[in-house]
Amino acid sequence: MDLWLKENLDRLTTALVPCSNCPAMSSANTVRQINLPGQKAVTDVLEKIIGVLFPGCHGHQPVSHETCAAVLHETLEKIALSLRDQIRRVMVYQCLHDACTNCGSCETESKTAALKLLEALPGIRDMLQDDIQAAYEGDPAARSMMEVVMSYPGLYAVAVHRVAHALYQLKVPLIPRVMSEYAHSRTGIDIHPGAVIGPGFFIDHGTGVVIGETCVIGRRVKLYQGVTLGALSFAKDEEGRLVKGVKRHPDVEDNVVIYAGATILGGETVIGRGAVIGGNVWLTHSVPAGAKVYNQQPQPVIRIEG
Amino acid sequence: MDLWLKENLDRLTTALVPCSNCPAMSSANTVRQINLPGQKAVTDVLEKIIGVLFPGCHGHQPVSHETCAAVLHETLEKIALSLRDQIRRVMVYQCLHDACTNCGSCETESKTAALKLLEALPGIRDMLQDDIQAAYEGDPAARSMMEVVMSYPGLYAVAVHRVAHALYQLKVPLIPRVMSEYAHSRTGIDIHPGAVIGPGFFIDHGTGVVIGETCVIGRRVKLYQGVTLGALSFAKDEEGRLVKGVKRHPDVEDNVVIYAGATILGGETVIGRGAVIGGNVWLTHSVPAGAKVYNQQPQPVIRIEG
Amino acid sequence: MDLWLKENLDRLTTALVPCSNCPAMSSANTVRQINLPGQKAVTDVLEKIIGVLFPGCHGHQPVSHETCAAVLHETLEKIALSLRDQIRRVMVYQCLHDACTNCGSCETESKTAALKLLEALPGIRDMLQDDIQAAYEGDPAARSMMEVVMSYPGLYAVAVHRVAHALYQLKVPLIPRVMSEYAHSRTGIDIHPGAVIGPGFFIDHGTGVVIGETCVIGRRVKLYQGVTLGALSFAKDEEGRLVKGVKRHPDVEDNVVIYAGATILGGETVIGRGAVIGGNVWLTHSVPAGAKVYNQQPQPVIRIEG
Repeated sequence: MDLWLKENLDRLTTALVPCSNCPAMSSANTVRQINLPGQKAVTDVLEKIIGVLFPGCHGHQPVSHETCAAVLHETLEKIALSLRDQIRRVMVYQCLHDACTNCGSCETESKTAALKLLEALPGIRDMLQDDIQAAYEGDPAARSMMEVVMSYPGLYAVAVHRVAHALYQLKVPLIPRVMSEYAHSRTGIDIHPGAVIGPGFFIDHGTGVVIGETCVIGRRVKLYQGVTLGALSFAKDEEGRLVKGVKRHPDVEDNVVIYAGATILGGETVIGRGAVIGGNVWLTHSVPAGAKVYNQQPQPVIRIEG
Repeated sequence: MDLWLKENLDRLTTALVPCSNCPAMSSANTVRQINLPGQKAVTDVLEKIIGVLFPGCHGHQPVSHETCAAVLHETLEKIALSLRDQIRRVMVYQCLHDACTNCGSCETESKTAALKLLEALPGIRDMLQDDIQAAYEGDPAARSMMEVVMSYPGLYAVAVHRVAHALYQLKVPLIPRVMSEYAHSRTGIDIHPGAVIGPGFFIDHGTGVVIGETCVIGRRVKLYQGVTLGALSFAKDEEGRLVKGVKRHPDVEDNVVIYAGATILGGETVIGRGAVIGGNVWLTHSVPAGAKVYNQQPQPVIRIEG
Repeated sequence: MDLWLKENLDRLTTALVPCSNCPAMSSANTVRQINLPGQKAVTDVLEKIIGVLFPGCHGHQPVSHETCAAVLHETLEKIALSLRDQIRRVMVYQCLHDACTNCGSCETESKTAALKLLEALPGIRDMLQDDIQAAYEGDPAARSMMEVVMSYPGLYAVAVHRVAHALYQLKVPLIPRVMSEYAHSRTGIDIHPGAVIGPGFFIDHGTGVVIGETCVIGRRVKLYQGVTLGALSFAKDEEGRLVKGVKRHPDVEDNVVIYAGATILGGETVIGRGAVIGGNVWLTHSVPAGAKVYNQQPQPVIRIEG
């Protein structure tokens, strides 16, 4: 090794060993006994789950009709084993973090949770059929269902969300959020795993969409890029700390359409069934069923020179 | 294998085998005879194509001056063979999907299409030279042409678009859209492969840009982040289904600049040569050549507390 | 090889060999002597650096308490060696590009720069502790610090920025921008490596955020998705070319909060300490400390049918 490096490496290492001067469980995943799964470990399992929901669609190799069942069997086993191990680790971590006393056995609960997720997959796949249908019917540019499955970011984000939401409902810490942020990274669509979203959901283009943790969205809802379903303000406790877990994001009823760049805020806000919200609309209060809501778009000034 | 898993795995697999209860060709790529290329297979070919357009720029290893020709030769062969195979599969798939009767031979047509794409590459590379130049001249932060090639998302998205658009013109199904959505995923820039875009095109920052299928964009046009060139409304047939393939997105003539967050909608809308469209402007009608269009930005209320 | 391909491949290759008809150093990384590191080579080093800043958090394998020091030592050596090699290449490239005469020895300077980056890492890690804390306290959805580290795009973008900015300060060409655009690609957050950003910085959601090269941001600042800190206009020289390196982006003082979609432009613009800028606000002038700035949001028109 070059001298310039040799003489410095030990010093540099010592300066960086996190265990010495880092608050434990803050930025180093090196805690004794309970190493959390790394981000990539979680997203690998997620990709496998997506693979069984859409066999042969997202990977490198197609899956032949004949081998489909065998491939699924093998993949499900891999998913079950690593998911179970990851869930156990995050449960132990969260117990430690919350200094909780009545956690029950992370051993048993992680098995149950992993199994329940696998059992939820057929139902998730059926909901996704409606999502695919909604995208195909909702976008004039869609040429086939398979184009939707293979290329639409909105469908990918929703597929990941339905998986992450199932884990969120099973009270699995950390993993759902890592999954949803992976979808956010790939699609620009930021759906918190806590959001409740009905079947036939379609997000077109999608970049910049934000859907908050306590949103409840009905059936056959359609969103465009840049739509925010967010919080109006945060409740704080007497010491000025944010209160977590309050309802702070809107509800959107069946068959609503929300056009690009609209911002809808607040836990009290309800968008009534069948309403249409126009581009760039800013809403902090409820609107009734069937309402058409649009901005008087500012008339731009047009100057023609010469 | 652990018992908890063993006793459930077969049941879980059966519940998921898509061939049994999934609509064929909707969400499982397991149809007999015609397995489509997986998403990753398509994006691998795309990366190889980007690699011959910008040798040594995006990959791990640089390409030496001496070996450049040999590397190109080898890569072009790989591209040709897998692209040809992928095109054949999607053509067969689309014929089946459209139940088309006069498709001609997918065998022959796929060869022709793959070959034509390769023959289009030198022309695409020349157009990209103008795009690089436009970015370098248009951004004060640009330090060198190579910085543009290696790091600018706008250039990457346009490079992928020029490839996807060539395949779109060759009437290759599915693959162009998978490619453009891959670029969308990496850049936040969503350009439909159908859009026609002249040379010297520069998108700065780019996140949230949407360019619709039937846009026609002239030479030396410059866009910023969050610009939408979209549809105003969708034509529907007598049964209320969206009519596909109508002109529904704007035209943008030479030397137009469109600033961040502007929304320009409609198939009749034409932005005249040399026009400048300001930030957040909302336009649903044409503006003449040389027009300067800007919002009276709302004067924000400013409250200063004690 | 199939005949259809065989008879065309040589011709296609010749048409594409860049060294023949491409402007050198524009789109082909095949220049004699000085091959630049490919994009992936740079991002691999970046991922290793992120790995030592957050051991075990982003990769596939966790890092055990016992092996942590050894892993860091090994990773730091890899980082040092390839970073040093990459810096040398880009320095030689830039010297050639600028036809500079008084460059000094790229051999020596690249060693120094690589070493200085490694020495900056502990300080960067400490700043990131404040960023993690700010995210945890600023987002009601955050369940643990580790959730912030493993899943928050804002933290990832800021971590990459702090590394890229250190290299930018060391006057390393090209590499910082490749790193920041990699973070942009993964998060939708576009922070130029030149921006100066204080500790305790939190970007929530983040998609569409743009922070320009000459921004100066204070301590404990909080931004939401779609915020632009950009340039109002570009200075041009007598020949109409953009002047590079002028101050053209805003300053944001300590404890400022800027809500989603706000646009703040201009090198003279200063957002005073503790100011709050509302959603979608458009600002091209300074506001004093403590100011609350918000739009009279346009009252949307609400039509109810039937």
